Amino acid sequence: MRDFLPAEKARREAILAVIRGVYRRHGFDEIETPVAEDSERLHAGLGGDNEKLAFGILKRGLTHDDLQAAREPLDLADLGLRFDLTVPLARFYASHRAELPSVFRSIQIAPVWRAERPQKGRYRQFVQCDIDVLGEPGPRAEAELLVATLATVDALGLEGAFVRVNDRRLLTGMLATLGFAETEYDGALITIDKLDKIQHDGVLAELRERGFTPSAVDALEAFFRRPQTREFLPFGEAAIRKALPDDPHPEAVAGLVAIGEAVAAARGSAAGEGLLQFDPFLVRGMGYYTGPIFELAHPSVPYSLGGGGRYDGMIGRFLGTDVPATGFSLGFERLVDLVELPADAGTDAVALLHDSDIPLAELLTLKSELIAGGSRVRLVVKPKNVKPTLDALAVEGFTRFAFVSAGAALASLELRPLSSES
Amino acid sequence: MRDFLPAEKARREAILAVIRGVYRRHGFDEIETPVAEDSERLHAGLGGDNEKLAFGILKRGLTHDDLQAAREPLDLADLGLRFDLTVPLARFYASHRAELPSVFRSIQIAPVWRAERPQKGRYRQFVQCDIDVLGEPGPRAEAELLVATLATVDALGLEGAFVRVNDRRLLTGMLATLGFAETEYDGALITIDKLDKIQHDGVLAELRERGFTPSAVDALEAFFRRPQTREFLPFGEAAIRKALPDDPHPEAVAGLVAIGEAVAAARGSAAGEGLLQFDPFLVRGMGYYTGPIFELAHPSVPYSLGGGGRYDGMIGRFLGTDVPATGFSLGFERLVDLVELPADAGTDAVALLHDSDIPLAELLTLKSELIAGGSRVRLVVKPKNVKPTLDALAVEGFTRFAFVSAGAALASLELRPLSSES
Repeated sequence: MRDFLPAEKARREAILAVIRGVYRRHGFDEIETPVAEDSERLHAGLGGDNEKLAFGILKRGLTHDDLQAAREPLDLADLGLRFDLTVPLARFYASHRAELPSVFRSIQIAPVWRAERPQKGRYRQFVQCDIDVLGEPGPRAEAELLVATLATVDALGLEGAFVRVNDRRLLTGMLATLGFAETEYDGALITIDKLDKIQHDGVLAELRERGFTPSAVDALEAFFRRPQTREFLPFGEAAIRKALPDDPHPEAVAGLVAIGEAVAAARGSAAGEGLLQFDPFLVRGMGYYTGPIFELAHPSVPYSLGGGGRYDGMIGRFLGTDVPATGFSLGFERLVDLVELPADAGTDAVALLHDSDIPLAELLTLKSELIAGGSRVRLVVKPKNVKPTLDALAVEGFTRFAFVSAGAALASLELRPLSSES
Repeated sequence: MRDFLPAEKARREAILAVIRGVYRRHGFDEIETPVAEDSERLHAGLGGDNEKLAFGILKRGLTHDDLQAAREPLDLADLGLRFDLTVPLARFYASHRAELPSVFRSIQIAPVWRAERPQKGRYRQFVQCDIDVLGEPGPRAEAELLVATLATVDALGLEGAFVRVNDRRLLTGMLATLGFAETEYDGALITIDKLDKIQHDGVLAELRERGFTPSAVDALEAFFRRPQTREFLPFGEAAIRKALPDDPHPEAVAGLVAIGEAVAAARGSAAGEGLLQFDPFLVRGMGYYTGPIFELAHPSVPYSLGGGGRYDGMIGRFLGTDVPATGFSLGFERLVDLVELPADAGTDAVALLHDSDIPLAELLTLKSELIAGGSRVRLVVKPKNVKPTLDALAVEGFTRFAFVSAGAALASLELRPLSSES
């Protein structure tokens, strides 16, 4: 877990404001849930491997006898810190459905916690920016999610980003076509999910080693080695059909085609080209996905910047009745590293370097008058050598400064420009 | 802990933006620390009674043997959720002092957690808005804190709010003057802190019951019963001297007078009148205060809306060398209840009530064009009876709507006004 100093905090808040603003204009509404959820809910099997990474919060009022009676640590925790924003959203929707529109588009911008081993680029507390559409079964939901996500990417100036798209039903349909048994699907997908890391040969070797139906693995190998052309097909029916061994799920293909057409239309056709890419081997780790799945990628980094998909069964786990749902989660910490956004641009910031014996009332009067004029103002006791102080103020984003002695009035104040180049 | 639905979340964010904006213009810089701090630090005696309310976070990888060996629950927690923002700030400053200006003015706007018994108006997760000045020993720090706090109160339209002011040194000086023994100070202040609740007679009875020096309690009674005039004295030396039994601490009085003059000057004299009130019996619960203390009050509520004071000794606990410090914390949840601020004012928000069979690409194109024009846009499938839907949209802040059928273009779209009065 990290501290954020002023410059970094300002940059993070500026980027969050951009994301929040785009999502709101696209018709999504922000909600907030508590950081802690019931332990039972966090360990209900909906969070996959992340459940194991949940921080538990000690029950209150535990006695020594309680500690002795506990069989495992979880017996002592009634709450835990959320490891994602999806489980809390499902619980929120189940609790408040009657107060929400029938199609509810939510924004959640909030920290989550995972007890990861400390390593570069992995944090135990990090921010996710999720949008979800609940109550809409068709591709309209995915189209709105993707258009809003791509608009955010535009607003952040993240040129070159694109979204890899697939559908869970095409994955299982492909496995069936190749001859895998239904009981093998989940296991085979775990291996196929490693394609980016271990390549075609690694996937085939692992599938053979783990004893999957040999003829199915052979069929996958033949498909991997099929003749490829370099011809570019824009996202759509032709591209999808060409990338699949057969037509494993017509409804899923039709859905992706509709999503692609809507995204292209919303962006103006040329601006949409290449932003969606069909990837028949995109898996997404979570078991709860039931339809289209996505991942935001950027050529400059080997990891995804976010992802999501349709999870129609999950809300039913809390509500009793199924509610169609799909969402997209941006990995904020990874975006922050890529995005260049000036913090606090456009604000006039004035530093008043004052003598230490100036009457306090005079000093605060000057400060207030400058603030009333729209400036941000910092008081600094004038040091003997002002150069390093002025340089530091410029780096911090202050734009003007003045020396202030007793008796100074705003009208007579000589405000001079301050720039980090000077 | 509570969920926040869209309308309330938008209102909270709008109020936070006002607070953050005022504090920034007054020269404070926002920082962020993780929600969890080391257990040891949270239980170092700096948090007073709040330490007992800290939620503990279970250590990772605990075995059954670890549970058996634990003598108390805290043995199983290496981290805890912060119960305030002051202990984390002291730790932050000790860690990052070299990277910060010599006088550091911080903003922290963040949730804290306390394991309170559920009761009205008390939450287990709630937001605090703290500003602190670190590295400035004199009244300049308090003057800047109070001017910024009062400007926030103005910006929130919270008319009638005022700040009760005292100094810890005047409290102990007064107890000495009245004849209490030094060892009695802390205990006597705990009782005097209840003055608002149990009145003069209750305080005297409790002090006698608890066995404090009888002559001192008699002297306090005589002081309570001294002749009072209704004459109004503006905050300043005369008002302070009149409210105290003697001159218990000339330096503390001079400091408060300087603070009062600076605040009055910064606000223009008339605008400052009555905003500061000297209260010789203001105690503030925390033991770490060493100088001026404050509490924000409003006539419409019996509890304080925030408070703070000087705590010169605390940072030295983490850093080894003492650093002067003073801060003011706004109780955000209490402010939210009092402040009326329209959420999302000024944004054009359009609802498109569309036929369910309209081509998705057409619908998303219209939505994108409206967003490009600066609107916030929500798609709604047109219901049979539109009246309840339009009413709900108006309540949610949507300002215009249109019916959309296949083939519609932006130019031909008939946008009609939507108002919650219609």
